[in-house]
Amino acid sequence: MPDIDTYLRSHAGRFEDELCELLRIPSVGVDLECRRHMHRAAAWLAEQLRPLGLATETIATDGHPLVYAESPKVPGAPTALIYGHYDVQPADPLDLWISPPFDPTRRDGNIYARGATDDKGQVFTHIKSVEAWMNAEGGLPVNVKFIIEGEEEVGSRSLEKFIGEHADRLACDCVVVSDGAQFGPNRPAITYGLRGIAYCELRLQGPNRDLHSGSFGGSITNPANALASVLAGLVDRRGKIQVPGFYDDVVPITNRERKQFAALKFDEEEYFEQLGVDGAVGEQGYTTLQRRWARPTYDINGLSSGYQGEGAKTVLPATATAKFSFRLVPNQDPEKITAGLRARLAELCPTGIEIELVEQYGSPGVLVPLDSPYIAAAARAIEYAFSTPPVYIREGASIPIVAAFHETLKADTLLLGWGQNDDNTHSPNEKFSLADFHRGIKASARLWRELSDIRK
Amino acid sequence: MPDIDTYLRSHAGRFEDELCELLRIPSVGVDLECRRHMHRAAAWLAEQLRPLGLATETIATDGHPLVYAESPKVPGAPTALIYGHYDVQPADPLDLWISPPFDPTRRDGNIYARGATDDKGQVFTHIKSVEAWMNAEGGLPVNVKFIIEGEEEVGSRSLEKFIGEHADRLACDCVVVSDGAQFGPNRPAITYGLRGIAYCELRLQGPNRDLHSGSFGGSITNPANALASVLAGLVDRRGKIQVPGFYDDVVPITNRERKQFAALKFDEEEYFEQLGVDGAVGEQGYTTLQRRWARPTYDINGLSSGYQGEGAKTVLPATATAKFSFRLVPNQDPEKITAGLRARLAELCPTGIEIELVEQYGSPGVLVPLDSPYIAAAARAIEYAFSTPPVYIREGASIPIVAAFHETLKADTLLLGWGQNDDNTHSPNEKFSLADFHRGIKASARLWRELSDIRK
Repeated sequence: MPDIDTYLRSHAGRFEDELCELLRIPSVGVDLECRRHMHRAAAWLAEQLRPLGLATETIATDGHPLVYAESPKVPGAPTALIYGHYDVQPADPLDLWISPPFDPTRRDGNIYARGATDDKGQVFTHIKSVEAWMNAEGGLPVNVKFIIEGEEEVGSRSLEKFIGEHADRLACDCVVVSDGAQFGPNRPAITYGLRGIAYCELRLQGPNRDLHSGSFGGSITNPANALASVLAGLVDRRGKIQVPGFYDDVVPITNRERKQFAALKFDEEEYFEQLGVDGAVGEQGYTTLQRRWARPTYDINGLSSGYQGEGAKTVLPATATAKFSFRLVPNQDPEKITAGLRARLAELCPTGIEIELVEQYGSPGVLVPLDSPYIAAAARAIEYAFSTPPVYIREGASIPIVAAFHETLKADTLLLGWGQNDDNTHSPNEKFSLADFHRGIKASARLWRELSDIRK
Repeated sequence: MPDIDTYLRSHAGRFEDELCELLRIPSVGVDLECRRHMHRAAAWLAEQLRPLGLATETIATDGHPLVYAESPKVPGAPTALIYGHYDVQPADPLDLWISPPFDPTRRDGNIYARGATDDKGQVFTHIKSVEAWMNAEGGLPVNVKFIIEGEEEVGSRSLEKFIGEHADRLACDCVVVSDGAQFGPNRPAITYGLRGIAYCELRLQGPNRDLHSGSFGGSITNPANALASVLAGLVDRRGKIQVPGFYDDVVPITNRERKQFAALKFDEEEYFEQLGVDGAVGEQGYTTLQRRWARPTYDINGLSSGYQGEGAKTVLPATATAKFSFRLVPNQDPEKITAGLRARLAELCPTGIEIELVEQYGSPGVLVPLDSPYIAAAARAIEYAFSTPPVYIREGASIPIVAAFHETLKADTLLLGWGQNDDNTHSPNEKFSLADFHRGIKASARLWRELSDIRK
């Protein structure tokens, strides 16, 4: 594709500058003060797509707006639905960022900013590949639809509702999602499995006010002690999660997968060294990769109780709170899991404590068939751009909306992550490799060609 | 004592106004920004004592200043050392205070302010009783020494050092401490036992940065999960603390004490109702009062890890921290306890976590003999002021410095708390009953007369 590739090379610098513009918008979805920035980000994306000749809309929702766009109809060609999100995780703790989270900085071949890789930088690769086809070739060889949301980090409620109500508009042959990582540097991957999630907040109320831990200690159930004991009671010594029925519906890892995983060049020692630990504990009987990709987990995401300042305060706190989540694998049902959780919490909660469980959001895991022609097309596009064939992996994270696409649109999903595992998604100093950014655009452009060869 | 009592009655309003002045000084010892307020509080107290004819000094230390004062020598009379503290606990959470913590407010017969009962209001009763003797009688019938410190809430390090180096200056026949509560409204008490304390901060470090809990969960030990499990592992189902040797040196509750405690009008149902709970769990085999006063405890005072804001963040946190403390009873040694704790933590800490234990401070418990003539004198003084004899109780809280007095000065300690159990010490809306304030002054004034009858 000489014209396309020349176009991509000659506009590479502008593409980076435009990405910086998008990254400067602090579109933190959970932050109520960022509401106007959510609208700015959505409008900015629409203004990228509309001039390319796509029928573009910004769609208001009960939450943050959706950006929807459709390319001019190419009869007989397949339709790809490109999904991405413009909301980003909160940037705290701010003091750990080397350069400010919303002041994108190019350094060591990377661009550093909140959202660089998750997901602004990645979804932007598909916008630029469509631009290349439109400007260099006068049109795309396939039909594309974009749906870009602003609530991915909080459960995609508005988009889920939209999918249910407008499945016809989103009808497609495959879904393209770039919101993840390669297997490693220069080791691009097609991800055929995602974990689901059930995210909860647990609030324990003890006495009606903070008490002096000397005067009252021993005579009142301490909610912080109770929280530690309840949270510890959700897992046993072998790393098995202690929720009734938790493992009932788990799709076991196949022998083929065990072999595939084992064949991957995964250096466990280096993995732990990069993360600064001397090893890890987890569910017994599984390898690190198996536990990371294909087994359910229980992780505490936040703890808060009592005095957290400098020095000592002898308080028996009135309340204690935890945020925690289960990562789920196919076919675990988040609602069944949280129902089991409620039963277990009732067992664990001691006298003197009132327990409140808030279910923040849930979504099931996904597995995509490896023999789909769309996956074969994606593999060829990736090899073209990255000069190496992809490996086939699963991913431990959740993209809850992919499960909804799967269920409602009945289309295969191509999970083509251009990021790296050390991109610090959800952490300070999030980054995206500029080389991967440009290779992602190139692979995306090639994907439209490869898909166009599939006759419907 | 008609002249004294008349003096107290006619200056009661001024006494309250002066206390308000002291309570307006935000002398929060742990807050580095309050350093100058610590000096202001010490200077203010010195300016109360000096005009009464006491040789008064403000003594600089490595921490906050000490206030020391000595009354003119009365040969042959016993010497009482009056101890108190002008530092107060942090006032947070600020939004729960009905009136601001450092804007003392008289309401419903109480004075509301941080430090009202702990300990500014209580130590001030002894200053005012000395004033009454000086101004109404021209002098005291006994020798008194004041030692008022600014580090009680953080372990009294400077005063402990001072006691070690200046035991001769502090030499006395009895120590008088008002820094606690009566048994109930109109039920004044002499407290003959105090618990000790060992206060620690536990820091768990997992990976070298916050991670995405989806991409990494299952493959990395989560320090928040580890914290819950470690903290839960410090106590068993029967409420027994799981630290090697923890109970070895515990002085058991005597049969006489069991009977005394049982005879006290303690309404357990009302106690729990007042605190808004439906009961409590604790060490099995002991009553609520026994667990509260005479058994050691383990209370978590603070928890902090990961995301604590609104909504959900799928983070696998890099660190997790807890503050917790053991309340100790005689003869548990805080150093022996923390040594055992270190051994237990090493057992409990999983692979992938680095553990750091910071010992914030420690102090042993105290028991005072009930047959001392000083206790008998205090009982008569209390009956004179409160129109009812005191009950003899123990207290769950710690006054670490009392252990040091006990050990170095070999003097009986009179623990005469004028407060109430619902005074909200260490909590929002701390208060002190104005009636108790004035009765405390009257009892203190009578105490100097009663003590003067004891011939040395």
